[in-house]
Amino acid sequence: MKKEITLNALYMNSPGQTWAGLWKHPGSRGDFNKLSYWTDLAKLCERGLIDAIFAADGVGVMDVYEGNPAALFRTATTAPSNEPTLLIPAMASVTKNLCFAATSITSYEHPFIIARRYSTLDHLTDGRVAWNVVTGGYQAGALAVGLPGLRDHDLRYDIADEFMEAVYKLWEGSWEDGAVIRDVEAGIYADPAKIHRIVHRSAHIQMEGYFNCSPSPQRTPLIYQAGASPRGKIFAAKHAECLFLVGHHKPYVADQVKSIRQLAVEQRRDANDVKMLLAATAIVAPTDAEAEDLRQDIERTVDIEGVLALYSGFIGEDLSRFDLDEPMENLKLSRGADMSKAMRTIIELMTRSYPDRQVTLRDMGKVIAVPGRDVVFTGSPQTIADQMTGWMDDTDIDGFLLTRTLDPTQLEAFVDLVVPELQSRQRYKTRYAEGTYREKLFGRGAHLPSIHTGAAFRRAER
Amino acid sequence: MKKEITLNALYMNSPGQTWAGLWKHPGSRGDFNKLSYWTDLAKLCERGLIDAIFAADGVGVMDVYEGNPAALFRTATTAPSNEPTLLIPAMASVTKNLCFAATSITSYEHPFIIARRYSTLDHLTDGRVAWNVVTGGYQAGALAVGLPGLRDHDLRYDIADEFMEAVYKLWEGSWEDGAVIRDVEAGIYADPAKIHRIVHRSAHIQMEGYFNCSPSPQRTPLIYQAGASPRGKIFAAKHAECLFLVGHHKPYVADQVKSIRQLAVEQRRDANDVKMLLAATAIVAPTDAEAEDLRQDIERTVDIEGVLALYSGFIGEDLSRFDLDEPMENLKLSRGADMSKAMRTIIELMTRSYPDRQVTLRDMGKVIAVPGRDVVFTGSPQTIADQMTGWMDDTDIDGFLLTRTLDPTQLEAFVDLVVPELQSRQRYKTRYAEGTYREKLFGRGAHLPSIHTGAAFRRAER
Repeated sequence: MKKEITLNALYMNSPGQTWAGLWKHPGSRGDFNKLSYWTDLAKLCERGLIDAIFAADGVGVMDVYEGNPAALFRTATTAPSNEPTLLIPAMASVTKNLCFAATSITSYEHPFIIARRYSTLDHLTDGRVAWNVVTGGYQAGALAVGLPGLRDHDLRYDIADEFMEAVYKLWEGSWEDGAVIRDVEAGIYADPAKIHRIVHRSAHIQMEGYFNCSPSPQRTPLIYQAGASPRGKIFAAKHAECLFLVGHHKPYVADQVKSIRQLAVEQRRDANDVKMLLAATAIVAPTDAEAEDLRQDIERTVDIEGVLALYSGFIGEDLSRFDLDEPMENLKLSRGADMSKAMRTIIELMTRSYPDRQVTLRDMGKVIAVPGRDVVFTGSPQTIADQMTGWMDDTDIDGFLLTRTLDPTQLEAFVDLVVPELQSRQRYKTRYAEGTYREKLFGRGAHLPSIHTGAAFRRAER
Repeated sequence: MKKEITLNALYMNSPGQTWAGLWKHPGSRGDFNKLSYWTDLAKLCERGLIDAIFAADGVGVMDVYEGNPAALFRTATTAPSNEPTLLIPAMASVTKNLCFAATSITSYEHPFIIARRYSTLDHLTDGRVAWNVVTGGYQAGALAVGLPGLRDHDLRYDIADEFMEAVYKLWEGSWEDGAVIRDVEAGIYADPAKIHRIVHRSAHIQMEGYFNCSPSPQRTPLIYQAGASPRGKIFAAKHAECLFLVGHHKPYVADQVKSIRQLAVEQRRDANDVKMLLAATAIVAPTDAEAEDLRQDIERTVDIEGVLALYSGFIGEDLSRFDLDEPMENLKLSRGADMSKAMRTIIELMTRSYPDRQVTLRDMGKVIAVPGRDVVFTGSPQTIADQMTGWMDDTDIDGFLLTRTLDPTQLEAFVDLVVPELQSRQRYKTRYAEGTYREKLFGRGAHLPSIHTGAAFRRAER
């Protein structure tokens, strides 16, 4: 039997994301600063049996393109942006099964603070929360929080490994099962003998004391990661239960999937212990012709300068210095010490692996499959379903993160048109599974599987 | 005309607070880990026209009493505790006028992170949010987040002053009014010329870059503080718009109020620019006799060890080494370098200013006015109203923070019985004022008044 498609809606607490300028389109509406925008979105997603809303984040505003963030602000491309985890309690209060993933960055906050945030969220959502572990790859974020500058890529991951140890100790090792007993007769709310002082001392992280939070439904929230560089993939294969993939070329994506599964096995995990979710854009309309019209309409609305400012930030290189019509394969990207090697690798790989036509920077503002951009599906529900199931079967991914285009009208169209089509093909659930996010996704326990690296931090007596 | 009473409900994201052990009482119900607990609470408060829910917080678990946190865990006294600001979006989604204050600690997080959190909350709540600025006075919190230990009291306040400068720069000086224009025709969401790079370099805080968040309704959230030490009062008089007072003795409280108002005037503020809210416990029943029965019932339920563990943490000194029946005036408190000088001062002052009887540590578990504990009102709605209005008129406070006792049944009783009584005396609002928290409280603009120190960080061209 072929795999069911896992489906996330990819958001940020912002007016616009990767498709720069679509806030201008009449198909976009609402104000992201208002609670009702998010509670309406949550209800829409739950109506469509979408697994989770994934809220990306970045601290600070990238200023690589022309040396300033002007194009991002002007085109509302990931800026302004508010903190994402604060959306979750409100969205959880109007839903029962929809899950939530959010980005918090290991370079900018202490593990005790982040552990407490996600324990709180996991309690409040009855276990419907995931943490997307991000190391913070932008100079702007580092400077915003007072670091002298962006740390080296691999060092960031080394620190993140220490960070994960610290949070696993809090989540898995501090409070034993059965510590909270609420025994009115004996006058005991929690049994102090089952709550343990945690000490963590490593090269970059110090932490000592008792964790404030009693064990939440999942203890460790479901762990997301997006590592795609060599070091990032090792980190992901060790920690991640869901991996956020980017790429538009099937052989490249299939190769990424295979290598992560292989690395997971090397960590003594099961190859399927990491769910692989690919960022994808769907342009949906009742017919292929209408979808094609919509595609052109969107293409006219996209602001290429916003897209280039975004990708300049991603790769840490000012793309304004290149001619828009120069083939991408000719671009001479510098090799700075910083930044998303993953994204750079993707662009380089994609450019090389696209023999049938020359792609330019200008194409990055178009709704076609372009190096470094997400895969794009355009068409009727049948066409989209064909493409999605084709990607599932050809690359061994587990599902998709749907990017934000016309918001919310395109998500509404997806829910109303594509979801029933996928259901009729038995490639999409017809109701949510029971339990916490981890239970829904893997059909087993609420806690980390015993084989996961985090489970090693459980106390022996449990 | 006499002042209307401003009224907050004092909570933590925990199963119990200062009245240790009351979770055992049949008048307490619900599970603080569930969202519905908080949304029900918010609806109850809004029904009672309560101004705000104030959510206190502490990072780490205090372990001064007997050198461990066992008594706090056993009695559910401020432990376990989850992060408080995550409650606000859910509570805001079920209310229209209720406001929210929460504690975030200046010693444990970077100003950029805290500024972004409160801008996000201020947007999502339409301006109904306040930040209680706390410097973090417990060794346990410092060790939890990797600091070598608790910093000296006055140094913490010096750092907090730097911290406030940094957040004012972000909130007041980064985005000009009118920066967000959403001009579809021109393709401009926000005008980059009106968004400014912020640089802050001071002894303890470095920050540089563009703020992610567009101006929220209040820009700077309403500022709470609880400074009571000499240094703390200077900080409060400079920054606070609401002051959280503790004390049970009218002359002491009146003196605190007077001195803060005087200090505010020395900062060129108006004496009434700081609202003074006194922590108070109300034991309410239809008649005085029933309230007296309830008082005794509560007293039997309170767990003295939890109370002493809490106060040991507050004053940084292990109270387990004293005899429970030794008069408090005989206690020889050591004079460590750390900790809440304010609480210590209160205890010393109160002990001296209580000539009519000898108070012991054991009394701290009783519902009587005890040195260092909150003032307690017990009785019928009429009796409570007499006491509250008496305190208002005799001390020049502006209102109360109602402590959590039997939760929520005593808050329900207060809303149903005392609120109408106060309204009939024209000492309590009959409907909420319009606008943001700051507008509701001061009857003027949504932003900091121009005389406030934070307003100096606005850009000259505005």
